[in-house]
Amino acid sequence: MIFSKEFTSAILIIGNEILSGRTVDKNTSFIAKWLGDLGISVEEVKIIPDKEDVIISSLNELRKKYQYVFTTGGIGPTHDDITSESVAKAFGKKYEYNKEAYVILEKYYANSDFNEGRKKMARMPEGATLIYNEQGSAPAFSVENVFVLPGIPSYVELMLPQLKEVLTSGKKIISVSCDAKVRESSMAVELSNIQDKYPDIDIGSYPYSKEGGFGTMLVMRSTNENKIIECKKDIEKMIYVFSAK
Amino acid sequence: MIFSKEFTSAILIIGNEILSGRTVDKNTSFIAKWLGDLGISVEEVKIIPDKEDVIISSLNELRKKYQYVFTTGGIGPTHDDITSESVAKAFGKKYEYNKEAYVILEKYYANSDFNEGRKKMARMPEGATLIYNEQGSAPAFSVENVFVLPGIPSYVELMLPQLKEVLTSGKKIISVSCDAKVRESSMAVELSNIQDKYPDIDIGSYPYSKEGGFGTMLVMRSTNENKIIECKKDIEKMIYVFSAK
Repeated sequence: MIFSKEFTSAILIIGNEILSGRTVDKNTSFIAKWLGDLGISVEEVKIIPDKEDVIISSLNELRKKYQYVFTTGGIGPTHDDITSESVAKAFGKKYEYNKEAYVILEKYYANSDFNEGRKKMARMPEGATLIYNEQGSAPAFSVENVFVLPGIPSYVELMLPQLKEVLTSGKKIISVSCDAKVRESSMAVELSNIQDKYPDIDIGSYPYSKEGGFGTMLVMRSTNENKIIECKKDIEKMIYVFSAK
Repeated sequence: MIFSKEFTSAILIIGNEILSGRTVDKNTSFIAKWLGDLGISVEEVKIIPDKEDVIISSLNELRKKYQYVFTTGGIGPTHDDITSESVAKAFGKKYEYNKEAYVILEKYYANSDFNEGRKKMARMPEGATLIYNEQGSAPAFSVENVFVLPGIPSYVELMLPQLKEVLTSGKKIISVSCDAKVRESSMAVELSNIQDKYPDIDIGSYPYSKEGGFGTMLVMRSTNENKIIECKKDIEKMIYVFSAK
């Protein structure tokens, strides 16, 4: 399944905590599924440390290669949050207080101390478009085709739906699964023939073992619903034959 | 904390199931923690689809940039398992039957059908070194500085310990955490001063909310244990001051 650039994207996960293995990245899975429903394919994910030169070069590579880039992490108040400034540098834009973000944060921290760390969260690349946090706290932002999201998964889930109107969406990527109680190595040749018959469908084969029994989850993905229905029939026939063996 | 190339690595996760969001990648976290204990830092992770040209170019980029590269996924028996052949092409090596792997697989499938799909798992780049699967089934392999592992996390966990003797290890990367019941934005400035005082220590600040209360996990990482102990004292002092506010 090959997408035209119009419907492609990349995700850039920024954060030492993911690279050190301390934290398992959940944002990729959530963002990718959400984009899949809009017909936008994630073609590449890169996980990088909180290092300015790496953020700048990765971002500049990805934003030219794909229609959209989604970053997560590094937009908080502390010293290790350097994403916003790095994004500004990648675009050659000023890194400055966004007036609207400043007002939002000033209001949110009204009863407590609106200190330097908190003010930092209002600093963004010049001309950034805000992505609001419904809970009233620090907004995220976008610049051109780059969407700069927080690292905390619950915030990403809150913010992402706002972007639906902004993105050029394609046809929904439909995903259909068949659970075969058969080892994938038994069916490998037959499955390959079915894949050849349906070049527009990505057929993935994922072996598993559950309660001592082996099985295979066969996953079909495509934007063409009719073809998936046809393909599924062939796969079910194959599973039937092998289950009987 | 900057590592010399000798102690750096990258992970290349190969598989449409991760990019589509269907599966959450758990291998990165496991491999990175294991490498951290050996003093080897993961500097970059790339998640890519099962596409030959992308696998070849990504692998050739990473294996020159870092001391070690670990790939996961795409070495099974089915049509979508193209990693082994792509690795051979990346190295400009023949893709052929590995005699030892062939014997292992022939034995494993002795009582059932040693079909084409299963034979495929014995095909590897010329001169590959086997990484055994203790359960007796398909081995993984390495070529020069590239370690080609399966996608299934339980197999990765089984196989990784074998590589300990092969890798040049550094000083263990020590990771120490302090749990502060304080919002990270309150302490941002003070934390930044502590980071400046300890340039050899990576201090990460990870906000969380639990049962309605906000808090921050402060994580120190370094190969220098004495410095971490000093730094931790400063951080605990800071937390004490802010907790009292």
